[in-house]
Amino acid sequence: MNLLLLSSDEVRDDQSVVINDRRANHLRGVLHVAPGHRVAAGVLNGELGTAIVREVGPDRVVLQLDLDAPPPRPEIVVILAMVRPQIMKRTLQHLSTLGVGHLALINSRRVEKSYFSQRLFDGDEYREHLVLGLEQARDTWVPEVTIHRRFRPFIEDVAPSLIEAAAHRIIAHPGRFPRATPLGSQRPVALAIGPEGGWIDDEVERFVDLGFTPVSLGPRILKVETALPVLYGALGL
Amino acid sequence: MNLLLLSSDEVRDDQSVVINDRRANHLRGVLHVAPGHRVAAGVLNGELGTAIVREVGPDRVVLQLDLDAPPPRPEIVVILAMVRPQIMKRTLQHLSTLGVGHLALINSRRVEKSYFSQRLFDGDEYREHLVLGLEQARDTWVPEVTIHRRFRPFIEDVAPSLIEAAAHRIIAHPGRFPRATPLGSQRPVALAIGPEGGWIDDEVERFVDLGFTPVSLGPRILKVETALPVLYGALGL
Repeated sequence: MNLLLLSSDEVRDDQSVVINDRRANHLRGVLHVAPGHRVAAGVLNGELGTAIVREVGPDRVVLQLDLDAPPPRPEIVVILAMVRPQIMKRTLQHLSTLGVGHLALINSRRVEKSYFSQRLFDGDEYREHLVLGLEQARDTWVPEVTIHRRFRPFIEDVAPSLIEAAAHRIIAHPGRFPRATPLGSQRPVALAIGPEGGWIDDEVERFVDLGFTPVSLGPRILKVETALPVLYGALGL
Repeated sequence: MNLLLLSSDEVRDDQSVVINDRRANHLRGVLHVAPGHRVAAGVLNGELGTAIVREVGPDRVVLQLDLDAPPPRPEIVVILAMVRPQIMKRTLQHLSTLGVGHLALINSRRVEKSYFSQRLFDGDEYREHLVLGLEQARDTWVPEVTIHRRFRPFIEDVAPSLIEAAAHRIIAHPGRFPRATPLGSQRPVALAIGPEGGWIDDEVERFVDLGFTPVSLGPRILKVETALPVLYGALGL
């Protein structure tokens, strides 16, 4: 935990905060904070700054916030073929650590239907894993997540407006495509990453029709959770 | 499992192989192979090719190998501050998926002493996790792993010969250093990646004395398991 993240409704009018959960345990048990200490702190979807520890008790930690401006919001749209339940939590954490503004989880021919019935998305549980990634990266912006069970309606009706402003549109696909190279500073960026086994050709074509450039990540076959950070690194994001 | 990996002592003189373990279960239960099917296969630290399924029984799978040349050996030396036991298995898997010839796990001021007592390295268990990474990447070269409990003797006595041939020497370090950019095709490459919390300045200086160039991976704080693939991507490895 490199950043103490609070929701805006936890912050009182005088900028004080009282916590008593895993974050308080972390402050006490791992960071060994004492009154007067400062820790990096932020408000979800808001400002970043520090918190001064005022009180450390067995059943609560009291802090006083001293916040500046919000960090820049990651101007990256990730379109990701829905991943297996076993790796979804870790994938969400990876993604919010790497930085993503909007995550669209979509269908693809090689995605199993059952992947769309993940309980993680029934309520807000998936959000906890995004927040863990933000605590790691020291970011406050929670990625917006949307789920799209059908490929064609997504490509035809949703994707055009989702990527409308994107200065760069990149689809990662194994094969004979050129290696991914740094994009430069223009934003936003839209990335499409396929399922294990890759997109089918027809799907790649639909993305190309939307202005996406196919890139390869090299000859080795990577899992989604490895391919994502490799792609971010290769594009210099 | 994108590659069936066999050890050389499993391969008979007539290039046939009989297996009856998790690999056989995978062939039967996930790939649903039948006699005549072909699967990608290789020999650990050796050739790559295909295996033709000859027999699929409840207690064994028999295959006939048809092997070509070995893949190119990854000419990458990774010097990694010893990681926490909780993430060691995953880190080994990530690394052999990404490709590494020699992995030196070393001490650093910010590494906890206890990390060197991981049972994983008592015998050969760590090797299984490297092999899982190779099965993913379709590589046969098992990274050589060495462990170095003291920083100075490593830097002074081991590192010079370990990196002697390295055309590029890169140390990842958070801070004001230039971002990592593609290295081009010269090999070998030596990479040094610090612990969570980073190298201390004195350690970075010792690497710089050995010809390492410090690079940053951007403003976000990444875990080792994210930083590794981001670095590989950024350097174009």
